[in-house]
Amino acid sequence: LSQGDLSAVRGWLDEMRIQDIAQALMTLDGEVRRDVFRLLPPGRRADVFAYLDPHHQLQLIRQVSVDEGRHLLSEMLPDDLTALLEDLPKDEVRQLLRLLPFRSIRRALTLLGYPEDSCGRLMTTAVVSVRPDWSMARALDHLRVQAGRGETVNLVYVTDEEGGLLGVLALKHFLKSRVDVPVSELMTGRVVSIDAHAPQEEALRMMRHYDLPALPVVDRDRELLGIITVDDVLDVEQEESTEDFQKMGAVGSLHLSLRQAHPWLLYRKRVGWLLILVAVNIIGGFVIAGYEEAIEALVVLVFFLPLIIDSGGNAGAQSATLMVRALATGEVQPRDWLRLWGKELGVATALGATMALAVSGLGLWRGGMEIAVLVSVAMMLVVLVGSLVGMILPLLLARLRLDPATASTPLVTSIADVAGIMIYFGLAATLLGLHGQ
Amino acid sequence: LSQGDLSAVRGWLDEMRIQDIAQALMTLDGEVRRDVFRLLPPGRRADVFAYLDPHHQLQLIRQVSVDEGRHLLSEMLPDDLTALLEDLPKDEVRQLLRLLPFRSIRRALTLLGYPEDSCGRLMTTAVVSVRPDWSMARALDHLRVQAGRGETVNLVYVTDEEGGLLGVLALKHFLKSRVDVPVSELMTGRVVSIDAHAPQEEALRMMRHYDLPALPVVDRDRELLGIITVDDVLDVEQEESTEDFQKMGAVGSLHLSLRQAHPWLLYRKRVGWLLILVAVNIIGGFVIAGYEEAIEALVVLVFFLPLIIDSGGNAGAQSATLMVRALATGEVQPRDWLRLWGKELGVATALGATMALAVSGLGLWRGGMEIAVLVSVAMMLVVLVGSLVGMILPLLLARLRLDPATASTPLVTSIADVAGIMIYFGLAATLLGLHGQ
Repeated sequence: LSQGDLSAVRGWLDEMRIQDIAQALMTLDGEVRRDVFRLLPPGRRADVFAYLDPHHQLQLIRQVSVDEGRHLLSEMLPDDLTALLEDLPKDEVRQLLRLLPFRSIRRALTLLGYPEDSCGRLMTTAVVSVRPDWSMARALDHLRVQAGRGETVNLVYVTDEEGGLLGVLALKHFLKSRVDVPVSELMTGRVVSIDAHAPQEEALRMMRHYDLPALPVVDRDRELLGIITVDDVLDVEQEESTEDFQKMGAVGSLHLSLRQAHPWLLYRKRVGWLLILVAVNIIGGFVIAGYEEAIEALVVLVFFLPLIIDSGGNAGAQSATLMVRALATGEVQPRDWLRLWGKELGVATALGATMALAVSGLGLWRGGMEIAVLVSVAMMLVVLVGSLVGMILPLLLARLRLDPATASTPLVTSIADVAGIMIYFGLAATLLGLHGQ
Repeated sequence: LSQGDLSAVRGWLDEMRIQDIAQALMTLDGEVRRDVFRLLPPGRRADVFAYLDPHHQLQLIRQVSVDEGRHLLSEMLPDDLTALLEDLPKDEVRQLLRLLPFRSIRRALTLLGYPEDSCGRLMTTAVVSVRPDWSMARALDHLRVQAGRGETVNLVYVTDEEGGLLGVLALKHFLKSRVDVPVSELMTGRVVSIDAHAPQEEALRMMRHYDLPALPVVDRDRELLGIITVDDVLDVEQEESTEDFQKMGAVGSLHLSLRQAHPWLLYRKRVGWLLILVAVNIIGGFVIAGYEEAIEALVVLVFFLPLIIDSGGNAGAQSATLMVRALATGEVQPRDWLRLWGKELGVATALGATMALAVSGLGLWRGGMEIAVLVSVAMMLVVLVGSLVGMILPLLLARLRLDPATASTPLVTSIADVAGIMIYFGLAATLLGLHGQ
């Protein structure tokens, strides 16, 4: 970077928001990134650093001086620090911990002690609390000190001496001038809270259901440990959906963006399901092998094979998608199965009838009346069976407390295909008087 | 409900949160629902009402007296009211509007004037603003009045006389006792804001990127119209993902839960794609028709047909899922295509080689050396082509500014199937010296 460039870059950096600077830095090459980072006023460096990906944070820590690295790490919020540490191999974690003051190490290790994807990992421990017997004036003094330290104060939690959660107070109560009343008089008791070991999806569900901007996280004795804010769960929601998408596409969870994922990782996440599905499809092959004589006698049967089996698979994919998503959002429960079953039966019958009508003309043209009847009846049954497989498989998995999204579109399609082959050739043998081996 | 039940129910209602009461009410039958609703203390009725689904809100409005209905509607927040009105047929809207005071009607009609899924539909107009030249003391007085009215005040926006957005002030600034300075001195200028006509996903993206708890909504002249809070976009995120899921499963957007959707609606949302895919699969049939002689000569070819074509479809489904989701979350841009293409080529080649190896033994057993070679080479190519179709189709759609999720799993599978049939029989004709018609 030349001198003229430097001042231009410095000018841009002043104009830009920290999140945009962080994003821009991540597109730069290592050396240039460090140089641009150094152009930031020291006061903004830690803020920008917090918005980098863990991978880039680590790189940068290695490029700056030990003192600067220590400063950057110690300025991170506890939850951001945990997010960095949990993504690193053990050696790196040890190296980084050496840079941190003892208090931060203890705090980071405590947070890392909670299970992955638990609320304990997501919460921020920077939470302001007051006592119920304090006057509002005393509580306000306490808040002023905390607000000066830059901590979150939109909701003020009320705890007893041992830190047990008693209630919550909206910040707006402090705007009114009733300073002489005790905190207990204005606070809302019976606060919704969540255990630190609960899964993050549970926090998301509660905040959505109760419309909460923040959720206090407690331990088994209801001691206040931290809070989860709604912007934290925004990412949880996206990660959850991405995981479900990947499962539905018969890909293992990546936990990494498609850009960053190494080809070898992508290979491993995909090959397993592809091989399992080969096994399913080989069954289809053996069913066909049982009807080789029928095929030799009437080769036109093969003409309709892709059409019939794919239609069953497609109808199954539709049902499975609707069911998996409805189970994931909680709008449908496994106990609703009877009602859903009836509805799906009706819809699938109507779809099958429409599809049968659509292909009957083609059957007539390619193979005459008998083939037209065979193809229509097969289509009807295949769409019906495919739809029901797509509906039942996710429900069954949910009942067994497995993830319904394991009933991926390719799995449902392959199972429906095998069923389709059986139905089609079985019908052909029966209706046309052909016989298998 | 007997008298004894009544007092028990009343006791429960006192203990329960409004959101839980709303959810419980929606599971009850019409008459009972009205009776239980009447048991609520008048002060809580409007709160509970706001959490009912539009469908249940309308039912309840019809069951209560005109005065009560008017009260319930007038207590609703502008954005909740809009959500109710936008889901109703025109006649119903007209009936409801008759119950509302003129001010609410005007406000509701203004909000309904914004396009569906725009920020204008999502925002709440209950926003507190102060002037830059006011002293903090005067601003605080203003806030006290507004907070008393129950409006949202965690962020205070600063506007000029015409309502033009100038800055924002965190509520915590009011905690400090510097009452003599003007608002302009403490406010943050250059606020991130969004146009009322912008799509809701854009608001979600901005709030996620800039980590904002609320986003001010402005018109073309930067006049402040309302705010969107992060809990509003939590639902947007879920709706977006659900829509993408449904598209990926080749189902039209339902905009309704699977439980509520009428079978006829489900039929219509599914039949279109099923019929389009029939057309794709008929192409596969015609390709097969071209090789009928080859099939008659070597019927074992049909044994491997489902295996080969499904494997291509499954690999394609995997790629399409990864690509559609990465495009939806923004972690991948259409301009990255070259890099993604190279990666996919590598992954797909490795997958194809593995799959070829897996089926070579089966080929040897069922048909000897020549068939083993044919099946392995076909599998390799089919997985490669399927993967590339799954990758390119969503990227192509994104480049054409269409929704990448239109490249649904069933569509990609069907296209890959046709390609697979061509590759398989084409190779068979070449390698084994068989010929088509």
